[in-house]
Amino acid sequence: MLLTCGCAKGCMLASSSSVLRRQHFLVRSLCLGGGGNRKGLNDIRSMACDSEAENVLRAIAPPLDQRKVAIVGGCREYTGAPYFAAISALKIGADLSHVFCTKDAAPVIKSYSPELIVHPVLEESYNIKDEEKERISGKVLAEIDKWLERFDCLVVGPGLGRDPFLLGCVGQIMSHARQRNVPIVVDGDGLFLITDNPDLVSGYQLAVLTPNINEYKRLVKKVLNCEVNDQDAHQELQLLAKQIGGVTIMRKGKSDLISDGDIVKSVSQYGSPRRCGGQGDILSGSVAVFVSWAHQHSSGAGVDSTSQMNPTVMGCMAGSILLRKAALLAFASKRRSTLTSDIIELLGRSLEEISPAC
Amino acid sequence: MLLTCGCAKGCMLASSSSVLRRQHFLVRSLCLGGGGNRKGLNDIRSMACDSEAENVLRAIAPPLDQRKVAIVGGCREYTGAPYFAAISALKIGADLSHVFCTKDAAPVIKSYSPELIVHPVLEESYNIKDEEKERISGKVLAEIDKWLERFDCLVVGPGLGRDPFLLGCVGQIMSHARQRNVPIVVDGDGLFLITDNPDLVSGYQLAVLTPNINEYKRLVKKVLNCEVNDQDAHQELQLLAKQIGGVTIMRKGKSDLISDGDIVKSVSQYGSPRRCGGQGDILSGSVAVFVSWAHQHSSGAGVDSTSQMNPTVMGCMAGSILLRKAALLAFASKRRSTLTSDIIELLGRSLEEISPAC
Repeated sequence: MLLTCGCAKGCMLASSSSVLRRQHFLVRSLCLGGGGNRKGLNDIRSMACDSEAENVLRAIAPPLDQRKVAIVGGCREYTGAPYFAAISALKIGADLSHVFCTKDAAPVIKSYSPELIVHPVLEESYNIKDEEKERISGKVLAEIDKWLERFDCLVVGPGLGRDPFLLGCVGQIMSHARQRNVPIVVDGDGLFLITDNPDLVSGYQLAVLTPNINEYKRLVKKVLNCEVNDQDAHQELQLLAKQIGGVTIMRKGKSDLISDGDIVKSVSQYGSPRRCGGQGDILSGSVAVFVSWAHQHSSGAGVDSTSQMNPTVMGCMAGSILLRKAALLAFASKRRSTLTSDIIELLGRSLEEISPAC
Repeated sequence: MLLTCGCAKGCMLASSSSVLRRQHFLVRSLCLGGGGNRKGLNDIRSMACDSEAENVLRAIAPPLDQRKVAIVGGCREYTGAPYFAAISALKIGADLSHVFCTKDAAPVIKSYSPELIVHPVLEESYNIKDEEKERISGKVLAEIDKWLERFDCLVVGPGLGRDPFLLGCVGQIMSHARQRNVPIVVDGDGLFLITDNPDLVSGYQLAVLTPNINEYKRLVKKVLNCEVNDQDAHQELQLLAKQIGGVTIMRKGKSDLISDGDIVKSVSQYGSPRRCGGQGDILSGSVAVFVSWAHQHSSGAGVDSTSQMNPTVMGCMAGSILLRKAALLAFASKRRSTLTSDIIELLGRSLEEISPAC
């Protein structure tokens, strides 16, 4: 179980700066001895109580607070996914939502909404010569490094594609974000990247992986070297998260299962039977905001029970319950024709119903 | 009349995978001896009963099921048509809707909606040198081949244009789709292509042609070598479909006439007096989803009378009745200013009124 820092309210206010938040994380890590004191806890404290997820959301959502998130994704083929993630983050309460994508994708993503800040910095192999790769890779990193410190969370993967050169650059971006203790949510093709290179996130407790069924299968195969066992889903997820050094994994499905290698939580509220593509992107953008709020909440020495929980797990629970509620409302109104944009339009109302703004 | 496979409910569930669906088609084709047992049926079982079309729609629309469709169309000149077809498929219930278009068209089509996945893979003559044609044609095909197996239906033609090199590539795409038993709906400039090369679809019972008056005239002239005879419209359509080897043809008009060379069906419900361009694209996208649902329905050994009907014909009936209903509602509200987008916005409500989602 995570210890809190014990600092008082004044500290919570101060900690709205990214630097202080990260210092809190470091202090917690030190208190935990790198998470080592979790290892003795073999019992799975799991529950499928969605009122708990709503309580978590209420606890971590601050009155109204500045958050900046960034999405790393968007290539020649995929532009919708990073947009969905970025706009969802804004609709939940982020003040600024950046997208780092390829040059081809940028004008299109910009055209979806003037609310986003879109950086055309990534490059795909087809666009560059072999001898230019090292120089361009350095340039891409330098460009993103200028911004990294300002973000409260990074989402890596929506619409990223699988170009080897691009994925190589993104791996380096993840390493730089990690050096700066910026929380990272990894989804979509970002999961393809880290399944091949688990070291990119291994041991990084500010990382969240949000695999769907197929992505989870590949991850289990790679890390646990076995097939998915649905009979022991909780234990398997717990083991997987532990094996990757205490990252938080949200296994998406009929119920979303969340584990950091210690506790296992489940969010099962009924959402929508419609499986329109893009819902995973809403989730990754939402989790980014909630994870960053949860870290602030935890560093604020709250006295409620939620402050004992790993903030990364809390962020996942809040993201999950909110998406389910918005999807339920959207389906009630749009039925078979429900699209991802319809769900995004209802994020605000859903959030207000669970946790009204002061 | 088509025989069903006789497989039980478990099979219906399993058949949601494209591969199994296509196996069902093969089994049905074998049972029919290549459609041979239809030849003795000379009577035209025709009716203009729209409650039948609504019943067909209700019968084939599954509770909510994953479908992936793709549109092949969109060039330097035309970008609206493939968008209308692709977004209509989503609004009816497809989970993913892809568009394969030229490089010029892609950013524009993407910008219409983040819900679509748009692949900038096709090329027009003006953009390439003669000596590059073979290489580029191979590249286009390789690009599309990676995806073909995943689609439950392909729509070929909306906004395709008539560039000879591009049409050559699209002909090859159709052949590849046919080899994989992917149903194909051919509309717009796709009909121009197959009127010149009827062999592309001849004998392929998973093909649907959706000609308007002029496209139908050209097809009759090419295949039956005569002028259109409106006095014997049903017989002529039946003969035309039979002559092209049992493809399904929907002759669009005041009434939509549908035949597979065996039965002839008519959908006459009043739609809208407004003839705004783009309604044909709504229809092709809708028919793609309904045809794929109908094949799943038929392979599921349903016990109702609809399961005896050619699923491709059922898909056309469902698409026709839905468009007419949505156009009626749109015109009631928007009157003279009714646009295609207004009709698309009412697809969901129309579908819900005919076949409420569970």
